[in-house]
Order: sequence, then C-alpha cells, then structure tokens
Amino acid sequence: MKRLLALLLACAATPALAQAPAPKAASERLWLGSAWYPEQWPEARWAEDLRLMKAHGANVVRIGEYAWSRIEPSEGVYDLAWLQRAVRLAAKYDIKVVIGTPTDTPPAWLTGTYPDTLRIDTNGVRAGHGGRRQFSISSPRYRAMAREIVGKMADAVGNEPNVIGWQIGNEHTEESYDPAARDAWHAWLKAKYGTLDKLNDLWATAYWSQTYSDWDQVPFNAGINNPGLMLDLKRFITDQWVAFQGNQADVLRAKLPARVFITTNLGGLGWANRFDRYAINTGLDVASWDDYVGTGHLDAYRNGAVNDLVRGWKRQNFWVMETQPGFVNWAPVSNMLYPGETRALAWQTVGHGADAVLFWQWRNALNGQETLHGSLIGPDGTPLPIYAEVARIGADFAKASPALAGTSPNAKVAILQDYDSRWAIDFQPLTKEYDQIGVLLDYYRPLKNALGAVDVVAAAAPLTRYKLVVAPSLNVIPDALARHLAEYVRGGGHLILGPRSGLKDEFNRLDTTRQPGPLADLLGGQVEQFYALDESVAVDGGTASVWAEDLVAKTPDAKVLLRYGKANGWLDDHPAAITRQVGKGSITYYGALFDKAVTGKLLDQALADAKVVRDFAVPADVELMTREGDGRRVAILINHGRAPQHVALPTTMTDILNGGTLQAVDLAPEGVAVLQTGGKR
Amino acid sequence: MKRLLALLLACAATPALAQAPAPKAASERLWLGSAWYPEQWPEARWAEDLRLMKAHGANVVRIGEYAWSRIEPSEGVYDLAWLQRAVRLAAKYDIKVVIGTPTDTPPAWLTGTYPDTLRIDTNGVRAGHGGRRQFSISSPRYRAMAREIVGKMADAVGNEPNVIGWQIGNEHTEESYDPAARDAWHAWLKAKYGTLDKLNDLWATAYWSQTYSDWDQVPFNAGINNPGLMLDLKRFITDQWVAFQGNQADVLRAKLPARVFITTNLGGLGWANRFDRYAINTGLDVASWDDYVGTGHLDAYRNGAVNDLVRGWKRQNFWVMETQPGFVNWAPVSNMLYPGETRALAWQTVGHGADAVLFWQWRNALNGQETLHGSLIGPDGTPLPIYAEVARIGADFAKASPALAGTSPNAKVAILQDYDSRWAIDFQPLTKEYDQIGVLLDYYRPLKNALGAVDVVAAAAPLTRYKLVVAPSLNVIPDALARHLAEYVRGGGHLILGPRSGLKDEFNRLDTTRQPGPLADLLGGQVEQFYALDESVAVDGGTASVWAEDLVAKTPDAKVLLRYGKANGWLDDHPAAITRQVGKGSITYYGALFDKAVTGKLLDQALADAKVVRDFAVPADVELMTREGDGRRVAILINHGRAPQHVALPTTMTDILNGGTLQAVDLAPEGVAVLQTGGKR
Amino acid sequence: MKRLLALLLACAATPALAQAPAPKAASERLWLGSAWYPEQWPEARWAEDLRLMKAHGANVVRIGEYAWSRIEPSEGVYDLAWLQRAVRLAAKYDIKVVIGTPTDTPPAWLTGTYPDTLRIDTNGVRAGHGGRRQFSISSPRYRAMAREIVGKMADAVGNEPNVIGWQIGNEHTEESYDPAARDAWHAWLKAKYGTLDKLNDLWATAYWSQTYSDWDQVPFNAGINNPGLMLDLKRFITDQWVAFQGNQADVLRAKLPARVFITTNLGGLGWANRFDRYAINTGLDVASWDDYVGTGHLDAYRNGAVNDLVRGWKRQNFWVMETQPGFVNWAPVSNMLYPGETRALAWQTVGHGADAVLFWQWRNALNGQETLHGSLIGPDGTPLPIYAEVARIGADFAKASPALAGTSPNAKVAILQDYDSRWAIDFQPLTKEYDQIGVLLDYYRPLKNALGAVDVVAAAAPLTRYKLVVAPSLNVIPDALARHLAEYVRGGGHLILGPRSGLKDEFNRLDTTRQPGPLADLLGGQVEQFYALDESVAVDGGTASVWAEDLVAKTPDAKVLLRYGKANGWLDDHPAAITRQVGKGSITYYGALFDKAVTGKLLDQALADAKVVRDFAVPADVELMTREGDGRRVAILINHGRAPQHVALPTTMTDILNGGTLQAVDLAPEGVAVLQTGGKR
Repeated sequence: MKRLLALLLACAATPALAQAPAPKAASERLWLGSAWYPEQWPEARWAEDLRLMKAHGANVVRIGEYAWSRIEPSEGVYDLAWLQRAVRLAAKYDIKVVIGTPTDTPPAWLTGTYPDTLRIDTNGVRAGHGGRRQFSISSPRYRAMAREIVGKMADAVGNEPNVIGWQIGNEHTEESYDPAARDAWHAWLKAKYGTLDKLNDLWATAYWSQTYSDWDQVPFNAGINNPGLMLDLKRFITDQWVAFQGNQADVLRAKLPARVFITTNLGGLGWANRFDRYAINTGLDVASWDDYVGTGHLDAYRNGAVNDLVRGWKRQNFWVMETQPGFVNWAPVSNMLYPGETRALAWQTVGHGADAVLFWQWRNALNGQETLHGSLIGPDGTPLPIYAEVARIGADFAKASPALAGTSPNAKVAILQDYDSRWAIDFQPLTKEYDQIGVLLDYYRPLKNALGAVDVVAAAAPLTRYKLVVAPSLNVIPDALARHLAEYVRGGGHLILGPRSGLKDEFNRLDTTRQPGPLADLLGGQVEQFYALDESVAVDGGTASVWAEDLVAKTPDAKVLLRYGKANGWLDDHPAAITRQVGKGSITYYGALFDKAVTGKLLDQALADAKVVRDFAVPADVELMTREGDGRRVAILINHGRAPQHVALPTTMTDILNGGTLQAVDLAPEGVAVLQTGGKR
Repeated sequence: MKRLLALLLACAATPALAQAPAPKAASERLWLGSAWYPEQWPEARWAEDLRLMKAHGANVVRIGEYAWSRIEPSEGVYDLAWLQRAVRLAAKYDIKVVIGTPTDTPPAWLTGTYPDTLRIDTNGVRAGHGGRRQFSISSPRYRAMAREIVGKMADAVGNEPNVIGWQIGNEHTEESYDPAARDAWHAWLKAKYGTLDKLNDLWATAYWSQTYSDWDQVPFNAGINNPGLMLDLKRFITDQWVAFQGNQADVLRAKLPARVFITTNLGGLGWANRFDRYAINTGLDVASWDDYVGTGHLDAYRNGAVNDLVRGWKRQNFWVMETQPGFVNWAPVSNMLYPGETRALAWQTVGHGADAVLFWQWRNALNGQETLHGSLIGPDGTPLPIYAEVARIGADFAKASPALAGTSPNAKVAILQDYDSRWAIDFQPLTKEYDQIGVLLDYYRPLKNALGAVDVVAAAAPLTRYKLVVAPSLNVIPDALARHLAEYVRGGGHLILGPRSGLKDEFNRLDTTRQPGPLADLLGGQVEQFYALDESVAVDGGTASVWAEDLVAKTPDAKVLLRYGKANGWLDDHPAAITRQVGKGSITYYGALFDKAVTGKLLDQALADAKVVRDFAVPADVELMTREGDGRRVAILINHGRAPQHVALPTTMTDILNGGTLQAVDLAPEGVAVLQTGGKR
Repeated sequence: MKRLLALLLACAATPALAQAPAPKAASERLWLGSAWYPEQWPEARWAEDLRLMKAHGANVVRIGEYAWSRIEPSEGVYDLAWLQRAVRLAAKYDIKVVIGTPTDTPPAWLTGTYPDTLRIDTNGVRAGHGGRRQFSISSPRYRAMAREIVGKMADAVGNEPNVIGWQIGNEHTEESYDPAARDAWHAWLKAKYGTLDKLNDLWATAYWSQTYSDWDQVPFNAGINNPGLMLDLKRFITDQWVAFQGNQADVLRAKLPARVFITTNLGGLGWANRFDRYAINTGLDVASWDDYVGTGHLDAYRNGAVNDLVRGWKRQNFWVMETQPGFVNWAPVSNMLYPGETRALAWQTVGHGADAVLFWQWRNALNGQETLHGSLIGPDGTPLPIYAEVARIGADFAKASPALAGTSPNAKVAILQDYDSRWAIDFQPLTKEYDQIGVLLDYYRPLKNALGAVDVVAAAAPLTRYKLVVAPSLNVIPDALARHLAEYVRGGGHLILGPRSGLKDEFNRLDTTRQPGPLADLLGGQVEQFYALDESVAVDGGTASVWAEDLVAKTPDAKVLLRYGKANGWLDDHPAAITRQVGKGSITYYGALFDKAVTGKLLDQALADAKVVRDFAVPADVELMTREGDGRRVAILINHGRAPQHVALPTTMTDILNGGTLQAVDLAPEGVAVLQTGGKR
C-alpha cells in the first residue's frame, strides 16, 4: 500500500505532459555507439578501435561493466588509471562515455573469500564463479563491497568531462534465497503487516492449515504457495533490487556532477516480470534496455509495443543500451537480420522514443561465452560486413539529430500494464492458453494502426492526458487504483477494462464484490461467472476464445455493446461487453478475448467515441511513428515488409535524410523515411 | 506372500455376492452435499451457508480435514468447541456431517518444531510448509501426533448424532524417504526374507554385482533398480500407508459408535498406482474418491470404468467425496462442463455404484491456492450459475433415493486389475506405446456396450459369481493366484488372459515356464517369444499393434482362435489367440493387442460362449447402467452425446424422476432417465 | 599440446598402411559368441549352455565383467576357482574366453565401506548402489582396489590357454566431480599452464571478470563456462579415463602372455563424445564397441559410418563386443529386427572391419534391470526363435573365416572426425539445427556409394595413403594440425574443408586470422562472415541451409567452385565454395551445408579430380563393402532394402557362402553375399 501510494505521489509530482524533463546529456542528441571492453585488449589497440568507431559515426561508448577484476585484481588493490586513460582517449575522438558499474560480475577472489556473497537459487543451490550474476542482491557484505568499488570508480572518472552517464550493474536478473535474504523477507513482512494475525487474516491462512504463529515460519522460496504470499514475494524482490541499486546510486549521486545521468540496463526481456520495472526506474534518470531479435526477424508490433513499454517505465525517452549487430549467439537459431533490417530496427526504437542505440558489442573477446555473438569488428581487428550498415545509421543520426533532439512520442491513447495483475494471473492462470502479452498486443495492433504514438504505462500513471485508456487483464484493483481510474472516467476519460479485471484486491484476495470489484458500481454491471474456454464461442460478428465472462448490466444506463451468440449454453445471448457513460467520460468492460475483426471494430468505435484524431493512413507493413517537441513534429516511416511501398503524405514534409520536400515517399523493404513538419499540432 | 494370502483370506471371508454388507449410514440413501470449511469464515455466516445448502437439496457436508491449525493453534492447546457448534448447527438444517481428520496439513508450529515429521522426496529434498502433504507417513512422531489430534476430535464430536462418517486424511499421495522410513524399509525386508541369501537369490543380485551383505546396503529410493526390489518397494509403500491410516482408524474405532462409517478419500486419480488401493481399503467401511474431469468433457467409457474400479476396491458401493462444480482450477485448460453435464456426471457415478456425490467446494476461501476453483457460492456469498444445476440434482436425488437405496450394480462379467502387474510393466515397459489403462479400456468398451454393469476387480477377488473374466496384462502370476484362476476355470468359469500375462512370479522374476507361466499347462499352450511392435501386423480380420506374441498350442484340445497373417516374418501364420475348454469352463489367451473390430468380435463370441445375457440395446452415445437390490432393478440412462436420442425400452418401466410409466424415452443431450422395474431378474 | 604432439608422434610411428599390425588372437579368424554370466547360474547348468553355444557355431564368450561380488564377496576374501572352472569348461567345447574386469560394478560392501569411491554427478549428487557405474574414475582408493581385483583375476586365469583377451571395465560412461577429481583438475591445469597469468591470457578471462588468482578458484563442473575451460575439461576427463584404464592395463600387461589382447568395450553410442575415443584406445590392442539398433531398423549409412569411425579409433580391425539378439530392452520401442536383419547387421559390421560379433546376452538373469532384453536362450533354458538365425551366422563365419582372416577395409578416401572441433561446436552451436553427425553423413553417403571402403579417422592421423580427405566442421585447427594438413596438400593430397573450419585455435580461442585461420593463406581465400540460417539460400544448382559463409578468394589462382544465388542479401552472388591447386594437390573450402544433389555433384567431381577409382556399381539399397589383405580381395554385398535385387559383378568371383563362382548375384531382402577375387589390387 505504501509502495503504491509512493508511486501515485511520484506520479502526481510529474506534470502529465512532462515526459521529457530537463534533459541531461541522455537526450540532447541521438546517440550511437557500442559496448567496448578496453580491459580485454592491449592498450596499443585502443586508438585504432576509437578511430574505427568515429569513422562509422559513433559518439558514445559504454565501458567498464565487467571490469571489476581488472580494477581491483585483489582485495583492496586498485588500478583505475587505465580506465581514466581509456575515457580520455575516447575524448580525443569526441566519443562520450557511459560507465558501467561492474557489480554484475564479482571477481573470483571476492566470492572465493566471501562465499556468503553468492546467490542461492530457488532449489537451494549456491551459484559459483565462471558465468555472471553469481552474487546475492541481498548480501549486506556484497552491497558494502559494491559501494566501495563504485566509489573508487566515481573518484577516478566521475568528473571526467567526457563521461556523460553511469549504468548500475547490468541486466538485473535473479534474486537470491540465501539466509540474509530470508531474514530480510521476514523483516519486510513484519514491517508491512505488523502482526501475524493481520497477515493470517489477509492471506486467509486458515485454508490448508497454513496459519503462521512465528514470522520465521513463513516460507521463503519461489514455489507455488498462497497467492497472497506469492504477490508479496514479488514486491519484496522488487524492493531488494531497488535497495541493491539505490545503494550504488547513493554513492554516485554524492560524487557525480548534476549533468551526468544514472541508468540501469534492464536487459533484453522487456516484458519480463521478475520484479516491478516501474519501481526499479524510480530514482534513475533514464530507462534503458536491450532490443534483441534473436531467432527470425523483427515483429514490428511486438517490438514497437515493448519499446513503448520501456518508454512508459519513466514516461520519457529512453536508451537502447544494447542491440544486435546483425545476430546474437544465444537464440535457438541465431540468424542474421536482413540487410537494412538492423538499421530499420534502430529507427523503430527511435520512432518509439529511444534517444540512443548502442550495439553489443564492438569486438568479441577472443575467448569467453560470447565469442560467436555478432559484432562490428572481427577477431582480426577489421570491420565485418555489418559495419557498413551501422555507418549508414551513423550518417542518418547525424542528419536527424537536430530535428529529433527534444522530441518524444506524444500519445493520446494508453494501454495499462500492471505487474501486480500480471503476477496474479501468472500464479493462477486457470488456462495455459491465456497469454497476457498476446492479449495486450491484440489491443495494441488496431490502436497503433490508427496512431503514430501509443503509450503503455502503469495503471497508477497520470491519465488525464489520454482520451482513451485500455486496461487488459487488470486483475488486481486495490481501492486506491479504483479511485484513480474512477477519477479519470469522471474527469471525462474513456476507460476500457478487459476480461479478468477487478477480481482481486491488493492482497491478491478475491474481491467480495463480483468483477470488476471496486469498479462494478461505476460500471453499473458485473461479471456473473468467468469461464476458461476449451472451445470458441460465438459473439455478434465473430467469436471469442480462451476466456469469456457472463456479464450482466445492473443499471438502466449500462448499455450492452456486444452479445454472445449461441455459445456454450452458459453464455447464450448474454452480454459480452457493456458500457456506461459517466459525465463526458465512459467506462466499458469487455468480457472476453474477441477475434481480430471484433476487437478492431470495437476499438475503432472507441477511438471515435473518445474523439481521438487518427494519424494519416499508411499501407500495411509500413509503420508510422511520430515524435513531437519544441514546435517540431517528426514522422518516421519504416517499411517492415518484403515488398516496396508507396506512401502518400497528408501534407508537404521535409525529408530529413535525403533533403528536399516530399508529398509522397517510396520505401524499399527495410526502407526508412524521416519527415519533418514545422507546424504545431 | 503373506500380504497376498491375507488378501485371499479376506476375500474368502466375504460371500461372493455380498457387495453391499449391512449398510452403515453410508448407503442408506443417496447423499448430496459439498466440502465446507466453517473455520475459514465468521461464525455469523454459517447459518446462511447451511440455509443455501438445504435450499439446493444437500443432506451432507464434509468438514474439518484442513482445520488442524484452527483446532490446535499451538502445541497442546485445543479449541474444538467451534467444531461442535458447526456440527450442531448443521443438524438444525438436517444436514449430516462427515468429519475429515486434518492430518494432510500439519500446522506450521508442528513442522517448525519437529522437522523430522516432514516428508523427504525421491531427490532427498525435505518438504516445507506452505502447500499440503508436507508430512512423512513413516514418521513415528507424526503418527503419534496424528493419534492425539484424531482422538481429541473423536472425543469432541464422535458421538454427535449428526456425524455419520469419518474420512482419514485426504488424498493419500506421496510417501517419504526420510531416515525413519529407510529403517522401516530394511526392517520390512528382513521380516519378509529372513536372510540376505534368500533376498539375493530371489532378486538374482549376482546380476550387476548387486549382492547385498548387509540389510542397510539395500537402496531406498524410487529410482530404476532391480525389478524385485522395485516391486517390494511398492508393497512396502502400500504397507506404510496402511499403517499410517490404521494408526488413526484404531483411535476412531475405539471411540466411535458402530453406526458411523470410516473411509478415506483416495483422490482424483482413480487409476493411480503409487500404492495398492485394494490394501488401503481393507479395514475401511466405505471406499471414496474424487471424480474430476479437468480439461474438456466427460469420457463416458473411461469415467465409467474408473468408477467401476473404485467400486471394485471394496466390491461394494462407494462415495464420490469430491467432484467439480462445473470446473476445476488445476487443469491445463480448466473449462466449464456443458450445462447439464455436471448433473450427467453425478448420475453416471450413481449408475456405477456411488451412493454419495459431494462437490468441492461450497465456497472458495478468499485467498489460498484454490481461490479460482469452481464452487457453488461466489466470493460475495451468493449462488453462482452452477448452483441451479446442483439444485436439480438435489431434486433428482430426493425422488430417486427410495428406489436406489440398497441397490448396487450386479455384474456377471469382470475385468481383473492387478497392481503387481501394473507395476511390473511400468518398471519394464519394453515399449512406450503400451498403455495399460488403454488396453483395459479396449476390453471394457465392448463389454460395457453389451451390459448394464461390468466389474473391475482385483485378480485375487472371488470370481465364482462371474461367467466371464478378462485379465488384461496380468504380468505377475504368483502360484497362489494361478491356483485361484485355475480353480475358477475348473469350476466352469471362462477366463481370458491378455498378452504379457504370466511372465513374472511374485518376486518379479522371470517365470522359468514360458508364458503364461503357471497357467501354461492349463492352457495347453505357451508363448514362444513376445515382441514389442514398431509396425502393425496382420491378423485374421484386422490388425494387431504395439505388442504381439508368438503362440503355440501344445495339446490337441488347445484350439487356435485367431492367426497372424503375413506379418513381420517371425509371426507369419502363427496362432495369435488360443483357447482350451476345461470342463464347462475355458481358458483363452490373446497374444496381441488387436484392433477394435477384432477385439469386439472376439469378446462378443466370448460372451456368447459364456452364456452371458446381454442387456437391452441403446443407441451409441447413450449409456445404460443398472443397479439391483431388495427386489428392485433400476436402469439409469444418460445421453452423453450432443444430439437428442430415442431409446426403446424392452418393457414398461416406471419413470422415477418424472413420474408415470414409459415404453420408450427421449433424451436430450446430457439427458438422464431413471427407470425402475419391480420384478426380479 | 603435449597430448596432441604425443598423438602425432604416435601416428608418425605407425606406417600408413599398417592398419592390421601383427594380429594377436583378436583378428586371427572371425569370432562369434555372446556374453555369458556363469556366476548367475548353478554350475550344473554350465555344460548345457556351452553345448548350445557350440551348436550354433560360437567360438568365443565374454565372462566376468559384472562378477566382482562373486569373486570378492567381502573385502579381501576371494573366490576365483569358479572362474577358472568356467574358463576350462569352455575350453572343452573349444570356446575361447575374453575376461572382463569387473570394475564397472563395485560390490555393495565396497561402496558401503568407502563412500569416497562413489561418483558425484554434475549436480553434486553422490551415486548409490543398485545400478551400475556408481564409482568415481578419479578416486585413488577405487583405482587401488581395481588394481587389486584385476591382479587377482590375472593370477587366476591370466595364463589359461583358453583366454585370448581381456576387456577393461565396460562401456566407460560418466566421469565424477568428487573432491579427488577436483584436485586432479587443478593439478592438471597447473601442469598444463604453469602460471595463472598464462591461463588467464589464453582463456581471455578479462571477459566477465573471470580472472583467476588461485588455481582452486577455477570451476569444476560440466556447466556452461568459458569455452577454453570447457575444452580443457573434456581433455582432463579424457585423461582421467586414460589413467583409470591404464591403471588396470599396467597390471594386466605385467601378468599376461603377449599373445593375449587387451581392449575395452566403448559401448553402444559410437558417436558419443564424453571423452576422446582416440586417446582412450591408445595403449589398447584392439578397439571394441556395441552395435545396437534400438527402435526401428538398420540405417545402413549411419551404421556403416559409425563402424568406420570405430575402425578409425585405432586404424585397424575391431570387435563388436555386444550386439542385439533381435531386440533390446531400453529403446522407446524395443522392437525385433526383421528375420535376416540380425545376420545382415553382423555381416555389415564385418564388411566395415569387425573381426568378432558377440551377442548380448546369452541368457537373461531371472531378475535384474535387463530381464526383458533379447537373448539367445529363454528363461526356461531352451533356444528362442532368434537362435536359429544366429546359427546361420555361425555357419557363415565358419565358411568365410579363411577368406577374411588377415583382411581389412583399404580406403583411399577419408573423412576427418575431430573431438576438439565437435566439442567446440557443441559448446557454441549458434543454431540448434547444426547436427555435426548429420553433416558428416551428408558427405559420407555419396563417398560410400562410390567406394567399397571409406575411412573415418582423426584429423591428426597419417593422411598420405588417402587421395582425398574431407574435413567437415573442423572448427579447431591448432597450428600443428594446420601444418599436418598443409603437408598433406603439398604432398599431392586433395583436402576439402567444410563450413565452420578453422575458426578456433587449440585453446578454443577465436583465431585472429579469419577462417580457415592457419589454412587461409594456403587456401588463398577466407570467410568474411559466417551465418546461421533461418531460411534456405540459393546456390548454383540447388540450395544451402542451416549454415552459410560469405567467402572471398584473395589470390588469382583461388578458383570459385560454386556461387550463392539471390540469397539473403548478404550472400547474393558471393562465392559459396573455393578451391586452390597446390602442386599436384589441392585445398577446397565449402562455405555452406549444401543439399544432397549439390553435395553429390561436388564430391563426384572431387573424386574425379583426385583420381580415385570407383568400385563397381550396385543398385540402391545394396551396399558393397570390401576387405583386402594377403593378396585376397573380398567383396561383401548386403541387400538392406525390402525388395529383391540383382547385382551384376564386374568379373567372375568366388561365392564363399554357397560355393562356386558367379558373374551376377541375386539378393533377397536382408540377403548377404561374400565374394572373393584372388588377384591383387
């Protein structure tokens, strides 16, 4: 509760449109670069690497995040001079630096001397040296040692003018189940609940005789357990990550100039939900992540949506801290992207709000787990075929940076993404077919087809800027969230709730009001019974599958939008979607997962009802993305298909990449156009 | 051996037709109800729950089986008054009570204080609190504590007139591999074999140098091991469960009035064979189990057969202690049954010998692992849509109870189901395609199509009441069992052995007579060689697949029933089934798994040869079930299909549910008819 | 490095054509027999077993390899008299004996008393008694006890004239991760690298901060780790097996007469690569293995190739120490081979260089894990149907032995198989579709279609005898190997390298010269970039899939053999295969996995260019195998298909099995012909 309130307060403090607060270096231009590991190479080589970077248009590198054993080869013995030399040499080539703190990979001497710093997994197995992420985020000793090394690094290079940002750790992944973490868990519960009576009551532990009479009895593992416990465990893990990261951020804040930004790279699984990614970004200046394709090719909607999710973490532009130079090394089939597709991917991220694209990695170490990953430079030290395509991105960014600096996507429609709800459904799916990301994307596609920008934000985010808000699978609706959503509707907003919404309260208990629980009164209707479907059921104009709910309107002004047809007997002719106008706003409930045609029709109508102005139409396979700011509006067009496309423009636009003005644009496969209109919206 | 003899003696003591011994309360009428957890709810709510139960026709509830932490909140501190109040309040609504002993879920204080009571799994991992079944059935301390709590409960409510039965634990599932269990295993072996020389000889431990020179060397885990050891381990586990359960039954017998029955609910996996379910039911008054469908819909043959199996555990009527109110929460897709299907399922179990149907559960706790399970009452405390269908079952049962009380299925044909054989084949399958339950069902379907009742009983059960007995996959035939079967044949019975029969002796050793081992002489033929098939082979009139044996008739009166065609070379034109008349009886051996047409033809002929009178014909998708007793014969008809069906009756029958008499009946999908004829057969 | 040099030196010491060194008993005739376990049966039965063996033509048995508990029933108490009696009784039937040392199955008293002798697996779990292979190969105590028992056995029967050979252990399988093994690993690394600085440098441990400052920090487990470490771990495991085996071989060498051979049976997974099988055969006299089919039927190419691989382990004839009497007991479907197929399998192994075929097993123990395995004798002690087919093999071998003794396959073409490369690709596959054995077989099939004999040998083997050498996936090319291959080419040899060749050096580091690394200069070309393919790409005359490399010719005389068509953009019209003549020899590089037609065409051309004389043509489904020696040339023809085949012979040949001479031969399905020509090649 306290956490949610904090989030809400944090939101309230942010003016709704202030997506891009006074930019630190992070958003002053478009950044291009790669991850570079000078500690892996003879110093004599460094200049040639930087020369080749500069030659393809790089203006940034990330360094240091795996260099602990180089910086502190044995306990208390430091060598930071090389890092300073690398930073300064980069400056000579006008390449800025982001420093990674090396806490993702403790040296062998550290974990050898202090095995209590090693992570213990859900099976009780202690991690060992040889890979990465072997440390415990909950270890007091490890946190102390992290402060120490981060402080030394900040002392050494924190005030170098060439250093523009810091990344804390890399790709936060696995929590730990060691004794220190266990103690922290019990302390966390005690702080939250105060008494075991309260915990027993809220978790309903009379069920299965689970009642706790001592805090230490409460299980601490990631197995299947009481849903109340499981949801709290996720929140505890989130808080452990926040504390682990904050421990380093505190040191950095105290030592770094204000112009320098702090981020963490949250890795390549944008949708992942091991912990709450809104919370982890609180206290950071910029969100960043990895955009990797893996096997196959770019799925434009899925990748667009996940970049929107990342933009939503802080509701401002972000960095793509890693992306693939053609291919990766870890996918089932680590194939190469098509020629031009690496560039299209970079531009898609920019179109969705990225201000930086860094390739992983510049050059592969000669040994180690990732020697077969795509890179810009081969083991012989000379450019690989992909280098030329990256150089083209470099040229693009140089041209487009003035137009795009200070702009960001400006959406009037948002999709809500809520970790509590995702966890709650993950814990109790009822059917293996319910794919929450897939459900979200089913709503995303028709909205994105209509608009150059769609937001994906937390349920607790400020909503007044949106004309339409869609909340798929909002399973957990605490009272505070219900009030927040009701206020949006009463303020004239149009809210759509998807199925499974409002079943649970903040303790993952069943709400004693039928769905949508605390919003049922506002809706003037409720769910009589939910059903996991083994067979599709008919609805007006199409079908529903996987999940359907039996709805009832309980007030005269609750209108039935859609009905089931002859279905499974239980649903026949009952309402499948109901809506109720509330002042100038409205609240709508979809009771089932509808097919594409039905969903598309419903959302087109919703856009019209909410008076959302559609962006200009583009052919299928072409994606339109828009960024706005400082009086400029920039449209980015990408042809994601395998055939050429012709796009008529609604007005004359300036062609940023090729010069001149256009009224229409032809796009080859993987073709990109960046078009500016000076006028305000 | 001793165990088998005990079983045979137990059988001998039971008159063959005495399927329904002097009924305790368990079978005095049709029972309907659900599992109710008063300890999870405010006492003020109880009356409303009982009122709603009574309103849908309930006459029984099960309570208490997860209430240990409520009854004994800390060691030695008891509160049983609430339980007494709940029992007495139910009495006011004329709702009888079955009390569950709560030993499936020890409280946190218990396992926290005495971790030696926790189960250790096959990987050596000790279970923890937070789910259920975390206890060791072999822990002397846990057994002592179970006696204590059960005694306290019996003292408190054992003599309440409203309590009609007790259930010991719930859904016995996993054995334990803790040190106490290990010691018990070695003691068990020593008691069985006396000397290691004998064990070494019977297990042939010279193979792979396994010879044991100390009892403690004998492995104790569920991994792949010597088949003799593995079979004994299953028997040991059975004996551990028997002792764990008997420990509580002894307390209850000493304290309860004679009218009260004792059962255990053996859970939803009727076919499961973690332990011997005939043995576990010895010493109980009534068998009970859970009939859950999970994903999809009712498979009428499979579900009918498994209910017959359950009836065979004690060879008398049984209870369905749990069934789904529409849907469950644990299946891959936990879909709802069709309207009417829940009722059809209830009636099918009654048709196969159930005297009680209880839904799990009345109302879901607000938190805990199963909050999304189907229930009769929603989280808001009011009926869910399924409630009306359950009320229809209530009305049905009220009308039908007088006709059905004291009746049970009366089969003239039995299928033998043998745990030793199932284990032996599980341990050494030779082909992953050999599905023992599937093989049994292949015989069951044509027999059930012909008859209103088919028994599924232990191989050691009394057989004289049957005209025809089919033993599929009777892999293990100890000498005593061979004598039992030979006696049946010599007494005029008709015995069919399926393939894989008679390969092993009681120590899971290869019999040194070729199959069917000790019955080969009686058969006058034998198996030359068995073959796991990778391709089907031809037989007269069809094919065989998965398994085929090369048979030879060795006496002139052993007749070849069926031959292989041009098959795989080894089998070409050899006998595929042979039979030999023995007095008025016969013994037949099927050497292969035949296709449906061939199996159907063989079994139709077998019914005719055994002079079994077929019941009246019904359309496909309609199932006919019969129960008899006290001079009444009741036919239950269910339309399991999705289309209406017309059934002509062989004589005028009384329509129990709708009144009047009928000469034909029309059944909608999921339709049920209950028809009585007064005359004896 | 030292290991590789030793191997090269060992090769250098072996004259290239000396595939069959002065034969010990192993190759003086064709051997036929089975595994016999007299310790499992009453001594009174032995004579009947031996009589039945003799009757089907057996001339050898293997005994003893699971008899430790019979020989040493308690510590220090020996009984070897029975073994001596068994050996001498066999002699009476003129059946020779191979003695197995029983170290695969320590007795229960041994591991009970000394648990430090038990293997610890990769999950840290200590093995237990009850199966086999529960011992640690690295345990000093176990090695000492192995010396002791082997010495006792050699003392007892080592000088029996009837004993012709010894097999050390059986089917070496799993290494151990116990503390003694861990110490040995660190000692091994220290001996190899001398200093941690060197190790850190060669493994590039600056990557992921893996730098080691103490030998004990180096991980010891089989998980994913630094590729340099992983490759060394495989070499360490190999050395542990070599030492474990050498420990016993030393005892035997000291006690046995020179005429007696020593082998180990390397089991049924011929392609397996848990350790280096060239190294394990060094120091043995004869290679032996198990040829099991498992589910389904004989894949003639795959089984032919794996027998060639086995022949290549020592580059001489070998023993099939176990094969299936019709069927096994462990396959998913353990079906029977077709009538005649067991004989065809035996003859195929002889055609590929086997001098002995032993069935497993003679008779199954009455209990134990393998009682359902195929055998020659049933549990009743009389022959099973397969016995007659084995007797036919006995008759065949008696007729053919004079012609075949002293002959062996004499190939002019070799395929290189390299464990370092297989491991390196296994560790870093980049695509799950790259099946190294499948790739090898794609080259093998067209070569085998053209030739009666193809060798599969180590990359370091002497190559001068071959006109054409194909190296598929030769990923790891140390400098010494590069020199060896270059020398072959410069000496007039024709070398084809497949894709992925020459990427890594001996430390599994990326070679800093682009592929094929140290052979790029000789090739006059290189790989610009490799690609794992998710879609097929076009090449002249067909397609490539799974893997393709972008080649460039860098010298005028490097000729493009094949080009990509319009492919994935990156490869369009680039070279897909290049070749360069070097004196009379040539070096060729295939950049992709081509389809069958393209591969066949390329290899047909390569055979022509290398002036390899093709053997006479036979119909599809018929396999031609040739053995030569002592002035004889023997052709073995097998019809692996399901239809009869007619084969025209190029000259008149002597029909060994049926007598007379032939100019053509008709082969029924599974039909075998053995045809001799007296003339020299």
